[in-house]
Order: sequence, then C-alpha cells, then structure tokens
Amino acid sequence: MTSNNLSSREPLLPGSTIGILGGGQLGRMLAVAASKLGLNTHIYCPDPESPAFDVAKYHTIAPYDDQNALKEFATSVDLVTYEFENVPTKAANLIKEQVFLAPGVNALKTSQDRLLEKKFLQELDIAISPFEPVNSPQQLLQAIKIIGTPSVLKTTRFGYDGKGQRIIKTAKGAHDAYKEFAGKQLVLEAFVEFDSEISVVIARNASGQIAAFEPSTNIHKNHILHTSTVPASIEKSTAIKAIAIATKIAECLQYQGVMAVEFFVCKADQSANNKQMLLVNEIAPRVHNSGHWTQNVCPTDQFEQHIRAICNWPLGQTERMANVVMRNLIGGEINLIPHGLSPNDHPHIYGKSHSRPGRKMGHVNTITPL
Amino acid sequence: MTSNNLSSREPLLPGSTIGILGGGQLGRMLAVAASKLGLNTHIYCPDPESPAFDVAKYHTIAPYDDQNALKEFATSVDLVTYEFENVPTKAANLIKEQVFLAPGVNALKTSQDRLLEKKFLQELDIAISPFEPVNSPQQLLQAIKIIGTPSVLKTTRFGYDGKGQRIIKTAKGAHDAYKEFAGKQLVLEAFVEFDSEISVVIARNASGQIAAFEPSTNIHKNHILHTSTVPASIEKSTAIKAIAIATKIAECLQYQGVMAVEFFVCKADQSANNKQMLLVNEIAPRVHNSGHWTQNVCPTDQFEQHIRAICNWPLGQTERMANVVMRNLIGGEINLIPHGLSPNDHPHIYGKSHSRPGRKMGHVNTITPL
Repeated sequence: MTSNNLSSREPLLPGSTIGILGGGQLGRMLAVAASKLGLNTHIYCPDPESPAFDVAKYHTIAPYDDQNALKEFATSVDLVTYEFENVPTKAANLIKEQVFLAPGVNALKTSQDRLLEKKFLQELDIAISPFEPVNSPQQLLQAIKIIGTPSVLKTTRFGYDGKGQRIIKTAKGAHDAYKEFAGKQLVLEAFVEFDSEISVVIARNASGQIAAFEPSTNIHKNHILHTSTVPASIEKSTAIKAIAIATKIAECLQYQGVMAVEFFVCKADQSANNKQMLLVNEIAPRVHNSGHWTQNVCPTDQFEQHIRAICNWPLGQTERMANVVMRNLIGGEINLIPHGLSPNDHPHIYGKSHSRPGRKMGHVNTITPL
Repeated sequence: MTSNNLSSREPLLPGSTIGILGGGQLGRMLAVAASKLGLNTHIYCPDPESPAFDVAKYHTIAPYDDQNALKEFATSVDLVTYEFENVPTKAANLIKEQVFLAPGVNALKTSQDRLLEKKFLQELDIAISPFEPVNSPQQLLQAIKIIGTPSVLKTTRFGYDGKGQRIIKTAKGAHDAYKEFAGKQLVLEAFVEFDSEISVVIARNASGQIAAFEPSTNIHKNHILHTSTVPASIEKSTAIKAIAIATKIAECLQYQGVMAVEFFVCKADQSANNKQMLLVNEIAPRVHNSGHWTQNVCPTDQFEQHIRAICNWPLGQTERMANVVMRNLIGGEINLIPHGLSPNDHPHIYGKSHSRPGRKMGHVNTITPL
C-alpha cells in the first residue's frame, strides 16, 4: 500500500504491517494491540534489548539517523507510527517520503518545541500560562520582569519527566539555570499554582471521527507520573471543558492517532463564575502513561484506539466501566509482582531485563466497581 | 526453575518463559496475555505459518512426536501449557519429565477420552446424559436397546466442532455410522432435547484459589460455535448451579489453569421443583472459544487468567462490566473487518494468512451497557 492510498482514507486491512519507531513499553503495548486486530508490527529501535521486540513479528536494530536502515524499514511496512515525540525531523521526513506517517509531521513538530506548541495554542485561544522566549541573558532578565517569580525556565526541546526545567525564584537562580542550559533555546513560564493536574487522552481518525477518554487526575512524584485516578477529582463542567479543548486541538492539527493533552486545574475564580480554570500544560502526540488506566476498564484501550485511528478504522467505545487507579512501578517496585497483588490489581509488566532507580518497569490498574 | 520449584507453589516471576504447545489463535492470545504480565513465550507448533509465532519471543517448528525437539523445547522454558487437549500423551509425559506442565496430565487424559470423562463425572455425581460404550456391532445394538433413539454415536477421542459424531435414528443408520467410525472406540449417548447450551469458564491456581466467569449462552451453526451471549438466558439459580459444578470439577482434578465446562440446559422439570436441569456435555482443559467474550468486558480476561493460574499468581477479577455478544468470524466473514464495525464492535483477528470455509478467522465482541 502506498502512502497515497492511505491518505485517500482507505482503512488498512488485517494482514498489513505497521512500523513503530521506538521499542519501549509504549511500542510493546502498541504491538500487542495491533496483533489483536490481525495486524503485524515491525519495531525500529537502536536498543538491542527493546522490550517491544518480544511481541513483534519484525524488528530492526539501528540508530534513528541511519538513513539506509530507515529507508529499508519504511519501504517494508504499510504505515509508520511512533511511541515518542522526539523522532528526529530528518527521520520523520525520510519516512514520510516512503510511506504514510501517523500522527503526521505537523503534530510532531508542534509538540517537539514548547515555544511552537505555546504559539499554536495561543492562536487557538486556548488558555496557557504566560511565557516568554529566552535566547540570551538579556532576554532572560526581560522575561523575568514580565513573567515575575517564581517562574519556570524550560528548554524548548527534549524535556520529559522533569528533565530540562528549573524553578526560578531569584535573578541569581535564573543566571545559574541559564548557564546550566547553555546554548539551548529556552522559554520562561509563569509558575502555576494549580489545584491538580489532569490529562485527556483523545483519538481522531482520518475520517474525522473523534473519541475521548475521561480525564484522569495525575499525581507526579520526583517529576515522574506516580498515579492516574479516574474519575478525576474535578467538577463535571471542567471535565467537559477539558475534552472540548482536546477536541479542538485534535481537529486543528488534523490529527490521526491518539494524543494526550495535559492540563493544570486552577482554583475556582470569582471572575470566572467560580468555575475551575484550565491551562494546557503540554501535548503528547502519542499514547501516554496517563492513559494506561483504560486497559482494564474500557472496552477499547488507548493502544487499540491508536491503532484503529492511524489505520482509519472506526474508533472503539471509550466508556469507563469501573473506577480505577493506575500506579506506576518504578525501579525496584517491580519486585512486588506477583506477591503483592490483590484480586483487583491488574498488572502490566514491560519485560525490561534490568531495573534501575527511576526506570518505569510496569504499572498496576486497581479497580473498584462504579 | 525446575518443575520441583513450581510444584512447591512458588509463583513464576516476570522474565520467565512459558512454553505453549500449539500455535493457533488460542496460543496467540495466550502469548499476548503472557506478554502483558512480563512473561516471555515459546510456541511449539508443526505449522510454519502459526499465527502465534508473530507475537512470541521464541518458536519451534516441529511435529508433536519429535522427541528431540520436544525435549529441547521443554528444557528451554520454565513451564509448559497447551492450547488444545489433543496433546499426545507421549509428548505430555516427555515434557512433564523436564518441566512443570499445567494443566496436568490428569486433566488432559480425562478430557481426551469421552468415556473416561463421563465416568469421572459420574463418580462425582454430576448429571450427564445416559451413555454406553460401543466397541462392537453387538455392543452397539445392545446400547441402542438401553439408550433408545434418537441417540448420538461419538468417537471417544479427537472429536471437535461436530467431527466424530453422528445422530442415530434407526438401527440401519447405526450400522452405517458404526462402519464410518470403523476401528475407533465409540460411545452412544442419549440425544438430549435441550433448551439451550451454556458454558462456564473457570480458573484455579496451585494455591487452590478459584475464580469463575459468568455462564454464557452458546449457539452453534454447522457444529461450530456461532455466538456466546452474556448474560445467559437462564435462571439465576441455574447459573449458580453451573458454577458450583464447574468448581467441583476443577477441585477434583486439582486443576491448574483455565477450564471450560459445557452444559445442556433442559426444560424445567416438575420432579425438580420446576428448576432447569443441567447436564454436563464436555470439559475442555484450556481457554475456550466460549470465553472470548471476557476480553472486552472483564477486568481480567480468560487468557490472562489462564497465565495467572498456571503461574500460581493471584487470580484476577471476573466481574462482568457490560453485556456482550461474541460472534465468530468464519471463513470469508473476516472481510467484514474493518468496514462493518460499529463503535460497540470489538474485533479480535487471528492473523491467519489464508481463510477457508469453516475456518475460525477472528471474532467480534459487541457490547452494550449493563
């Protein structure tokens, strides 16, 4: 199947092969979901011990800048998707020349660069925290004047799990942080006094069909997601608003696949009829850790939904059938399995050969009836 | 890990490898379930195009009587299970000498032979339809005198999807059927005028923990399962009784794994306080087509439950969270995918390269809220 066929919206049929860039747990769970729909997978990853290799029909071990390997990979599959947003633009473009890439380069570019992402959201009139670009010490001082302190200095690219960001409390602190990020494009954001963090996982297919899962309340520990809880501790109107914002983003990006939108929920404000305020924090153009709760309580989980969406299949049901808390197993916490499991604990283990402090090794969905 | 370790009830840990005899759709879905729990799989199957190979870390292509291949397979894994009950006894014994086999040889032997199975059930005082063994034309005539007509003549071994059985209406018909099955051990069963067929899928682990899924009503078409519907169209007391019978069987077999028990539901009987009567039709010592409905509506599905049970992990929740109809996709019906899907249709496609009339290619779970 050529990219032409797919962009003309023909669904990808069972027996086809999906290429996945990245062989971590997300790639692994995507491969499993694809297999349930009768689709083969081909994982591309530089790490010879990629956990996704174990459940995929094909794999390629090569770096993301190996043009020959990328080309061979792209020509051997019917469609390419990815498990992480930091796919190098060059690799994405090379693949796109050979075969359909979903979600598209537009979504990738926007989410790879905080500044682009913020400008994109601003243009859509979606509320975000105030920000200023920072490319020089002078700009930093100017930005602090505008944004104030406390504020957060972030690299525009390659930030995740708290990496690439520093809280700024004083001009001196700002100077040190700037030095630490020397040479990188930065952005200074106002520090948001949020009540809670939530996210919405949403899917859109090429036919324009959209399906969102309910928002989850997310709690981080050491900058790594610790738990996602559904139902989220927010007002119903806030949940509806969050889904409406995620829908707007997916539509404006002409998005194909599953996307996560992270929000800060701020205190009810008199000026806003005492409604909770929502600020978009980040967009992830992929399946997301905060959507793992869908695996045991929704008829379609986020992984199957992503595969359906990129293949332009009808999307599946997203209704939640039970209450759930998703908890990540980090590092040595994997040793709780299976001894520490209650009947309502539903483990998902990533098959990584070595555990390291801070490494995501698995997660557990704990379920209680509605 | 030696078989000794496992029989002393230590749970099998993530990172271990489960050997699976058989590479069809059941092996494939078992391999997927194992991967979710961080376990590797090694599929053993003579068919080089086995769909389970695509989702397993290792596979062996060899016949079930290749003793060297079986031995190598058995010594390379931490535990062996199977997707079909017709594993040759010799192969099962050879494997059992090397590594833990679950469900055990006892369950295999009992379910491989209709006569043994019926005697086993009779000893447990579990109601079944009247039967007589048939090994000669004289015995056949004698059996017809006792059982009457219509009755069903069945081979004691290797029957499935209606193969190996004939309805007997006359002595002449009996003679023809006998000739057709020449040389095989047979059993004549009374023909049961049933209201419906149901099955219970139940799991037991080495620690003795038991968990049953709700019964489903099963409808066959051309002797192949067509639909399973849950909730089943039976009285609540009948459902409770069916689960109690399945529990008794699992306990008496000291069963480890998931097992299906098929029942005939007969008309309410005055002699039995107008309660529906249950007759056990068959036991399958494995995950079962009539348990596929669990995949989209239970927190733990039958495949994960089987892996948990054979690994002696705590069993998972079996509560049904929605109403569901499972429909098999036979032969060309696979071509309905994905175009014919509604949002509440949840397809499971087996990745078979060729469709043939009568071949199970996939199934669809159609879900409606409770």
